[in-house]
Amino acid sequence: MDFFETVFKRYTHKTKFLADSVPLADLELIAKAGLAAPTGNNTQCVKLVILRDKKSVEELCEISPTEGLKTAPAAIAVFTDMAASKGIKNFEMEDYAAAAENMLLAAVALGYVSAWLDSPYFDDDKRLAAEELLNAPEWYKLWVVLPIGLPDGEGTRRSKIPFEELVSYGKIGDM
Amino acid sequence: MDFFETVFKRYTHKTKFLADSVPLADLELIAKAGLAAPTGNNTQCVKLVILRDKKSVEELCEISPTEGLKTAPAAIAVFTDMAASKGIKNFEMEDYAAAAENMLLAAVALGYVSAWLDSPYFDDDKRLAAEELLNAPEWYKLWVVLPIGLPDGEGTRRSKIPFEELVSYGKIGDM
Repeated sequence: MDFFETVFKRYTHKTKFLADSVPLADLELIAKAGLAAPTGNNTQCVKLVILRDKKSVEELCEISPTEGLKTAPAAIAVFTDMAASKGIKNFEMEDYAAAAENMLLAAVALGYVSAWLDSPYFDDDKRLAAEELLNAPEWYKLWVVLPIGLPDGEGTRRSKIPFEELVSYGKIGDM
Repeated sequence: MDFFETVFKRYTHKTKFLADSVPLADLELIAKAGLAAPTGNNTQCVKLVILRDKKSVEELCEISPTEGLKTAPAAIAVFTDMAASKGIKNFEMEDYAAAAENMLLAAVALGYVSAWLDSPYFDDDKRLAAEELLNAPEWYKLWVVLPIGLPDGEGTRRSKIPFEELVSYGKIGDM
């Protein structure tokens, strides 16, 4: 799919997915797109876990049930490895976010929908439980899980502030 | 350009740009792609300043001279508006990062190169000076400037850790 078509087609799919499974090759291509994002100082601290079937997604979903994950046939969990930065200034929030955005777009480019599901892991206990389920060592942090699949009906697109209110030319406020 | 071609073609261009100017329509399309990224709770806190000519880029570059910005014919400065979240949990780092990544890709899709130039603004004094130059109110924060233009010779691509070392299946460490 064309880049700009992809970027403007993407939305956050918070509702149901069809049960159709996602071929592993597609999940791997999405992961590769994620890892192609830049990382601060090239630490490449982003680590991914591909959950390729409904059962493994459901196990994760049990820790913090959310509508967006319950029916997903596949998902990618996005971690950062805090040991990767080896004392260099750490950019793990930017790094995971850029990788996640690439993967959301890659999912759309392949005809799927996805969502940035981080709220289930704001609660430290739930995040730690999810990290344990996924065998993460203690120097890994789970930030977000991206459910991936075909939509069971297109979800709602949220309203957008007009371009003119968010962009200035030369100086803030200049049109 | 195809989405996957774009994502795998992108690299961080840290060296010189050609002097050719970038049409405003291209800069606006790149900005639109940036603003199409998701924001936490849909606060849409990301604000952009388009620097459409060499002179305005040079003024900004004087505050914190970097090789990557010195020759750029255009740039987009990425701010977050801390007032936009109105007491909702703030995701400004993820939000600006997702928007910046969309714009880096959009630049590549249009045949340009760019870079994630944040290091000039780690120094608070320089960041504040840049914010003042760009007329930002005090509740705006400048995170990154993306130089945009045609490359004067392709820059160096940094080495990448093999896919197999960054991705697991089902559980961390499982192949």
